[in-house]
Amino acid sequence: MAEMGIYEAMRTLRAVRRLRPDPIPDDVLRRVMEAATWAPTGGNRQPWRIVLVKDRAKKQRLGELYTRSWKAYVGHYHAAIPSTVPAEVRERTLRTLKAGDYLAAHFGETPAVAVFCFNPNHMAITDSAQKRPSVVGGGSVYTAVENLLLACRAEGLGCVLTTLLCESEPEVRELLAIPDPWYTAAAVPIGYPVGRGHGPLIREPVEKLVFLDSWNNRL
Amino acid sequence: MAEMGIYEAMRTLRAVRRLRPDPIPDDVLRRVMEAATWAPTGGNRQPWRIVLVKDRAKKQRLGELYTRSWKAYVGHYHAAIPSTVPAEVRERTLRTLKAGDYLAAHFGETPAVAVFCFNPNHMAITDSAQKRPSVVGGGSVYTAVENLLLACRAEGLGCVLTTLLCESEPEVRELLAIPDPWYTAAAVPIGYPVGRGHGPLIREPVEKLVFLDSWNNRL
Repeated sequence: MAEMGIYEAMRTLRAVRRLRPDPIPDDVLRRVMEAATWAPTGGNRQPWRIVLVKDRAKKQRLGELYTRSWKAYVGHYHAAIPSTVPAEVRERTLRTLKAGDYLAAHFGETPAVAVFCFNPNHMAITDSAQKRPSVVGGGSVYTAVENLLLACRAEGLGCVLTTLLCESEPEVRELLAIPDPWYTAAAVPIGYPVGRGHGPLIREPVEKLVFLDSWNNRL
Repeated sequence: MAEMGIYEAMRTLRAVRRLRPDPIPDDVLRRVMEAATWAPTGGNRQPWRIVLVKDRAKKQRLGELYTRSWKAYVGHYHAAIPSTVPAEVRERTLRTLKAGDYLAAHFGETPAVAVFCFNPNHMAITDSAQKRPSVVGGGSVYTAVENLLLACRAEGLGCVLTTLLCESEPEVRELLAIPDPWYTAAAVPIGYPVGRGHGPLIREPVEKLVFLDSWNNRL
């Protein structure tokens, strides 16, 4: 069977939050994990690990923690929808929030959750001296996360990059026996989609996001 | 022409540091930038921008700043190679360092450098309260960087994810007129490879990087 094309996979990778409880074959899951291992990392140190959670009780507990953060987030989010947005945008936003509610309520039934961990001691965090939030450590983790998401897409698996569980990091570390000095960067629930799953994206165009040689000089 | 397969692209995406000065056709560069726009970001906020640097004088200046950090980094790196490592590993490391020297010396001749910027105000940084370096902001930038790298791979372009220029962020922001509150996350030099370019990777296997349900419980 021919592989899915690289552009097709990227162009149709959606956040899929409604996932079926049906199990994922081991060989499929393994291909998805292997794709993560290929990602570039600073100095090729690969300072990340995945704890793949399939245990029902542990997923249930992750779901409780996720729901706690999700409810707080949704409250902010609803408040932040300006009354002036077009009806179409409002409806799309409300659909996304409902899908988020579904994910939170069904976290425990998701067949697998990939919890990405990282070790800051194995990272050269070149922006640590800057007076703004550091992001560079993420350069050696989210490349692997993106590979995993794209592989899920190619395998017909729904998935979504979530970071809300980082708010409950002490509880998550205890639940999964994550030792010092490893911390959590993301949790990716994985499963076959309830609905259509992946498909066309809503994104800003190149003209808005890319400049040539100087800020605001459109490409 | 059929697209490169998703797994083939990921499995052969190397850090290519020896790049030819030959120009890159505009339509090729555009496809690579568009791939970045498709990446998932928190709340679909897309809190990143690219300043694509093609101006020779600006690339030259970025090269000076890069070289400053690279020389300091290489010093540490040489000192950190244990005398006990096998000759093969030592030689591979020295080859990588030489390729890094080449990149630093030829930064100005690289046809294009994609400087990724981000706006922390458009990010929900869920690990900001944790007592360790924050990485979550990177989850809305390096997904786009990885897409760009994979698209380069598919187009036969060499590229490498670098973050050393973050150490010179004030100078880079001034050079590219990057306004508040936008900061820098990565610089990706792009060009056709001098040598073989992409190919097989050296990576840790799934068995080392992925656990099942609990830390150290191998998949």
